[in-house]
Amino acid sequence: MDNVTVKYVEKPKLKNSIFIEGLPGVGNIGYLAAEHLRDQLKAKKLATIYSRHLPSQVIVEGRGVVRLVSNELYYAKHDDRDIIMLLGDAQASSPEGQYEMVDKFLDIAKEFDVEVIYTLGGYALNRLVDEPRVIGAATSDRMVERAKKHGVVFVDGEPGGGIWGASGLLLGLGRERGIEGLCLMGETSGYFVDPKSAEKVLRVLAGLIGADIDYSELEKKAEEVEDFATKIADMAEFSAESSKDDLRYIG
Amino acid sequence: MDNVTVKYVEKPKLKNSIFIEGLPGVGNIGYLAAEHLRDQLKAKKLATIYSRHLPSQVIVEGRGVVRLVSNELYYAKHDDRDIIMLLGDAQASSPEGQYEMVDKFLDIAKEFDVEVIYTLGGYALNRLVDEPRVIGAATSDRMVERAKKHGVVFVDGEPGGGIWGASGLLLGLGRERGIEGLCLMGETSGYFVDPKSAEKVLRVLAGLIGADIDYSELEKKAEEVEDFATKIADMAEFSAESSKDDLRYIG
Amino acid sequence: MDNVTVKYVEKPKLKNSIFIEGLPGVGNIGYLAAEHLRDQLKAKKLATIYSRHLPSQVIVEGRGVVRLVSNELYYAKHDDRDIIMLLGDAQASSPEGQYEMVDKFLDIAKEFDVEVIYTLGGYALNRLVDEPRVIGAATSDRMVERAKKHGVVFVDGEPGGGIWGASGLLLGLGRERGIEGLCLMGETSGYFVDPKSAEKVLRVLAGLIGADIDYSELEKKAEEVEDFATKIADMAEFSAESSKDDLRYIG
Amino acid sequence: MDNVTVKYVEKPKLKNSIFIEGLPGVGNIGYLAAEHLRDQLKAKKLATIYSRHLPSQVIVEGRGVVRLVSNELYYAKHDDRDIIMLLGDAQASSPEGQYEMVDKFLDIAKEFDVEVIYTLGGYALNRLVDEPRVIGAATSDRMVERAKKHGVVFVDGEPGGGIWGASGLLLGLGRERGIEGLCLMGETSGYFVDPKSAEKVLRVLAGLIGADIDYSELEKKAEEVEDFATKIADMAEFSAESSKDDLRYIG
Repeated sequence: MDNVTVKYVEKPKLKNSIFIEGLPGVGNIGYLAAEHLRDQLKAKKLATIYSRHLPSQVIVEGRGVVRLVSNELYYAKHDDRDIIMLLGDAQASSPEGQYEMVDKFLDIAKEFDVEVIYTLGGYALNRLVDEPRVIGAATSDRMVERAKKHGVVFVDGEPGGGIWGASGLLLGLGRERGIEGLCLMGETSGYFVDPKSAEKVLRVLAGLIGADIDYSELEKKAEEVEDFATKIADMAEFSAESSKDDLRYIG
Repeated sequence: MDNVTVKYVEKPKLKNSIFIEGLPGVGNIGYLAAEHLRDQLKAKKLATIYSRHLPSQVIVEGRGVVRLVSNELYYAKHDDRDIIMLLGDAQASSPEGQYEMVDKFLDIAKEFDVEVIYTLGGYALNRLVDEPRVIGAATSDRMVERAKKHGVVFVDGEPGGGIWGASGLLLGLGRERGIEGLCLMGETSGYFVDPKSAEKVLRVLAGLIGADIDYSELEKKAEEVEDFATKIADMAEFSAESSKDDLRYIG
Repeated sequence: MDNVTVKYVEKPKLKNSIFIEGLPGVGNIGYLAAEHLRDQLKAKKLATIYSRHLPSQVIVEGRGVVRLVSNELYYAKHDDRDIIMLLGDAQASSPEGQYEMVDKFLDIAKEFDVEVIYTLGGYALNRLVDEPRVIGAATSDRMVERAKKHGVVFVDGEPGGGIWGASGLLLGLGRERGIEGLCLMGETSGYFVDPKSAEKVLRVLAGLIGADIDYSELEKKAEEVEDFATKIADMAEFSAESSKDDLRYIG
Repeated sequence: MDNVTVKYVEKPKLKNSIFIEGLPGVGNIGYLAAEHLRDQLKAKKLATIYSRHLPSQVIVEGRGVVRLVSNELYYAKHDDRDIIMLLGDAQASSPEGQYEMVDKFLDIAKEFDVEVIYTLGGYALNRLVDEPRVIGAATSDRMVERAKKHGVVFVDGEPGGGIWGASGLLLGLGRERGIEGLCLMGETSGYFVDPKSAEKVLRVLAGLIGADIDYSELEKKAEEVEDFATKIADMAEFSAESSKDDLRYIG
């Protein structure tokens, strides 16, 4: 077994492709957005990726059947630009592993003629967020300008701590290999899984790639989380009237 | 010295083999069950496995003699299916090490014609458990159905966090190499070594592989632990009447 | 991608060179001093260094454009000795990574005829420091004597814990490869970024390499930090009159 | 640079050699004992060992001169058995590093005809120890019996947690390569550097290898530590009469 193993389901011929990354991260925003897009585009499985850099773990699926932790690639034929999507259970656990896996993702991207990479994630503000904005960072001024036209906000010097993990490295290493990239980060509290912020991110992405999306499933998930958060907030308010946190601002 | 070194004691000819893993883990359940089975089947030493991925440690045995931390393989001729068992002092300490060691275990399994893998472990509930059930997860629906007939419980989406370490990877990587697998997890508090839960796991396994086992040794160990736990519970109740934990439910 | 990748911008011919390291560390002193020297000497970019041993991160620059975390080399033609400077976003995250990266830095140093290495850093005293001294450590008695003439203080057996990271290894591994070295450590509290201490370090270095520096930019930064620290001290004094710390000694 | 680099000072011809390890560890006992033996035997430098598995650090020596963290080998001609000693600043920081370094030590041991390995260390009891005993663990019953005649105590199943690091691995891996070994562990509190316990260990070792040692230097160090510990104990007793610890049993 190699450090990173790619098992192709098929090898379609793709052209002028777009690569979209939605691995787990802050608020699970990138994953939720990418998963929803995959379902809406009826994307097909391209490959399964196993790696020693992923956790040494199997996932137990609904009916008690296990499968190895993996990353997965999907593809969809889409207008004049084809789409490849990267989803998965986890990211590499060490910096060295991150570099090696992202390097492999970029090998694959090159093979399928990828010209632009969009990476999706969350931006934790450590406070509740009523109307999450979509913060951006890109590999070039040209991409920044293009993103601004679709409502992406660029805040000078943010995120101050840079962008960690696959969402950052795909842009950084991709740029070194001549691929343009844009990272879309939905603002989020960092306390909950955040489908509401994921929806915002996906709406921006849909504009950028010209996709027509039905958001009702994501909206339903967002309501469930909001109900849950409100209940927690009520309980917190009840049990500790004196502790002044921001939770009451929900709803 | 290679990363993983296998020292064979002998190289028997085995056919249609079953591979049983019982490395240390939650409540030491897998180890206790596998150790008891090994003794009951009078299994013989097949190989000792050393590895840089194991802790840098020697074990001091009863009379003051040391031996390197290791994993060990045993085998037993058993009806129409031979049995290989994996026990040991520890599991690999890093994810990368886990993948490399399990890969080697599977090489060995292939060499000895292994067709099914059973991995044994515990499932920590973080509360005292009166009547531990045996929770299962498997590589196929067929295995799930077979296990159900022997009393294994499949709870939808559990364990939610997946199965970590060798018990999980042997199934996940084994499945990729065409070997069926079933993980048996005895429910346990997670507070103590749990021979009672180990016995439950072993009874299920014995049914699955058709083995005739005398459980009196395991039962004796279970009573010792129960006595100990009851004493701790009494002391806790005495010294802190007000702290309401579940310990009083023992016995 | 190799473990360490060096991308040269140009390959100048340098002679009898001096190598100056200012990677991030305690109080960011080494970085601040090296950055200021680079600007004052109008040093030119020599190479960008990427590595798997650096954090898996991209930096977001002012206008929203990302670049991969890197180390960077600059050079300046300077009297009879040319100068190479090493700055960067981060140091390697593991000991193994540190050794591998510093080894590569020394390969480069050898290639450009480096004869002396100066490494710059901070020495945390865990208390506020009014007049930071510059503590030294060197690869030979000869270097110690030379440094003393420029005001460097050598305290017997300090730093007691040795010198960690690139500032230490460049001297230790450099000495093994026949390159002289001196580490200059500005005393600092360890609580703040410390441009004042950086200035002290740079003044000593300027004396050693015979450079003519305008310090006004560094002095301005030092004042800003001092203002900030004074405000924090006032707030601390106000809100907790009773907690007797050293903060009131500021200003 | 290799993962482990051995720089020989000379390559003496040694026969029927004894290998003595005294790397830093619990109470620094192994190091203190080995260092004292080295000085008493006027052992000469054999080799310096550098490694990426050691901390990325330089040590600052008395006069401000640095040297790379290292392990060091010494040798002494001694009756009919020659002696090799291993001292150093630190042990490898990862398990994998420990295995790789100890493997290299054993290569060297084989090269110099080593037949027995003595490893020296401390055994932390987490309470003050008036009369430290020397606990043993060995690679064979024969070694256990021999050690008992020199006053080494073998407590059934102790140390229960095994022996970690180089002191353990040298025996465990050495045994696999046909070298006998004995580990001598001086009982100690674990709170202080413990030259008194180191002296006990060295007295046992001196008996085993037939060496004639003057212990006055070690005894002086032991008194200094005892004075210091007594002062700490007095202060503790004074400032907190009510906290009943064992410190008053000193002296």
